Amino acid sequence: MVKKVEIFCPATVANVGPGFDILGFALDAPGDIICLERTTEKKHIIQNDSEIDLPLNPEKNVATVALDAFLSSLNSNEKFHLTFKQKIPAGSGIGSSAASSAGAVFAANLLLEKPYTEADLVPFAMKGEEVASGSAHADNVAPAILGGFVLVRSYEPLDILGIPSPDGLYCSVVHPEISIATADSRKILKTSVPLKTAITQCGNVAGLVTGLITGNFRLIRDSMHDVIAEPIRSFLIPEYDRVKKAAMNTGALGCSISGSGPSLFALSENKDTAEQIGKAMESVYSEARIGSKVYVSMVNMKGMKVLLEE
Amino acid sequence: MVKKVEIFCPATVANVGPGFDILGFALDAPGDIICLERTTEKKHIIQNDSEIDLPLNPEKNVATVALDAFLSSLNSNEKFHLTFKQKIPAGSGIGSSAASSAGAVFAANLLLEKPYTEADLVPFAMKGEEVASGSAHADNVAPAILGGFVLVRSYEPLDILGIPSPDGLYCSVVHPEISIATADSRKILKTSVPLKTAITQCGNVAGLVTGLITGNFRLIRDSMHDVIAEPIRSFLIPEYDRVKKAAMNTGALGCSISGSGPSLFALSENKDTAEQIGKAMESVYSEARIGSKVYVSMVNMKGMKVLLEE
Repeated sequence: MVKKVEIFCPATVANVGPGFDILGFALDAPGDIICLERTTEKKHIIQNDSEIDLPLNPEKNVATVALDAFLSSLNSNEKFHLTFKQKIPAGSGIGSSAASSAGAVFAANLLLEKPYTEADLVPFAMKGEEVASGSAHADNVAPAILGGFVLVRSYEPLDILGIPSPDGLYCSVVHPEISIATADSRKILKTSVPLKTAITQCGNVAGLVTGLITGNFRLIRDSMHDVIAEPIRSFLIPEYDRVKKAAMNTGALGCSISGSGPSLFALSENKDTAEQIGKAMESVYSEARIGSKVYVSMVNMKGMKVLLEE
Repeated sequence: MVKKVEIFCPATVANVGPGFDILGFALDAPGDIICLERTTEKKHIIQNDSEIDLPLNPEKNVATVALDAFLSSLNSNEKFHLTFKQKIPAGSGIGSSAASSAGAVFAANLLLEKPYTEADLVPFAMKGEEVASGSAHADNVAPAILGGFVLVRSYEPLDILGIPSPDGLYCSVVHPEISIATADSRKILKTSVPLKTAITQCGNVAGLVTGLITGNFRLIRDSMHDVIAEPIRSFLIPEYDRVKKAAMNTGALGCSISGSGPSLFALSENKDTAEQIGKAMESVYSEARIGSKVYVSMVNMKGMKVLLEE
């Protein structure tokens, strides 16, 4: 019987351009490292060995909220000792809460000898997202668990599917040191959109998935336009237009808001370009005297990585 | 030098479910048969040998309007004698005007020894659509010319691409004997849609193209929902819900309004099912004492067919 599991839970980019609310993908780095062990305590124990502040109360921590949804579906009274060894900064827009929620249920599923398939775990992880942002969205937790690009075709009923993507697709993320709460970022969106805008978004998202599946970089580039969320949310992000322009001028296929920000992500065809884009985006923030952190990563096709199982 | 060209111009289904305004496909039947010859007359001559009424004034016929856009781009003063030998009924919702517009420019391009690629012809054919419906849409003319499923990713700039689809995909069309003008049908749409609706449509259209490209029939079926136009336009079509239900109960992958109606189309996995669906849809109209015509056809992967070139 497995007693202890340690896993790497990847950061994720959601709201991929025109795929607002429905398309996300996983990164190779950064990520959470979570260790899960059974405990005989009466409640879950959360231990934080990371450098990031996080709630130690199991009712407020997204990981234990997700764990409880998972355990309750199994009518299990199991309790866990959960250690965060590494944590993606909260409020970064690259799926910090998703990594914790998805990581916890993924680890628990291993400890309990896989009562569920990986895809089955998504709804439990979404319960954590609901606590984090007020909306049980799946476009971070699904790619965190499944890897690669994931389309959330429908929420009712939940229908999630992996979208093949071309080999060697890279992503550069810049995280400026400002904070935006996902819940606020959602509130500023308009509740309706012009018909023409909706059709433009549909054309671009259909073009983007077609470009991803068929490996058509020209099409990915031409389709990477979000006409619904980006025009509104980008106002919350300092230097947005300049950072995006710097990425595009350095060869990005597209650049948009990662999740609900403040991070921006840019897609590119190879590692060199991705690194140059990362530097170009960082420079803009550096010139504006805003601290920022850059991550350059291949699209992560595997999702979770088991580091230890004993 | 080619002096005379006779071509078959296929009917097309536009507004394919969630692909409202952006996705169409070509049918094997019915279609126009158009014969085009050079003439020394001072203006185009339109001869109508079909059973369908159509304008003989070159300024009002969509085919000659499209022809003139084509000729003007070449600075050509060429005039043609255009004979309609067979014509899709106007106002049917299966691309009658598109077949004429696209057919005329396709034939003229052959007569003039192909100054343009097939894809280049789309904008000229769209000029005919503008005359027919008040909107220069491309989701009928592009599949009529190119065959198969065609995504109009963007109108500004125009970006049109073929979407691979699974072998053996069949379509049943029922055309009830009532008439709806495309222009009216467009006016009743709301000018804005709820954000949630826009996202649902995006998820479904992304799912539909993914299903088509990867040959995933389950996904095609689950994605074939139009939440923007169908809920409004279906009120203009008598017996809509019953016809759709009959198609779905007979094994259709999806059923929706063809173009702006009044025809309905249903997709299915093979010819037998498609024929049964056609009968089921016709029965509903027959019970309601509304005359109808049924077409059962494979998705036409080739587009135009040259019948004679001399």
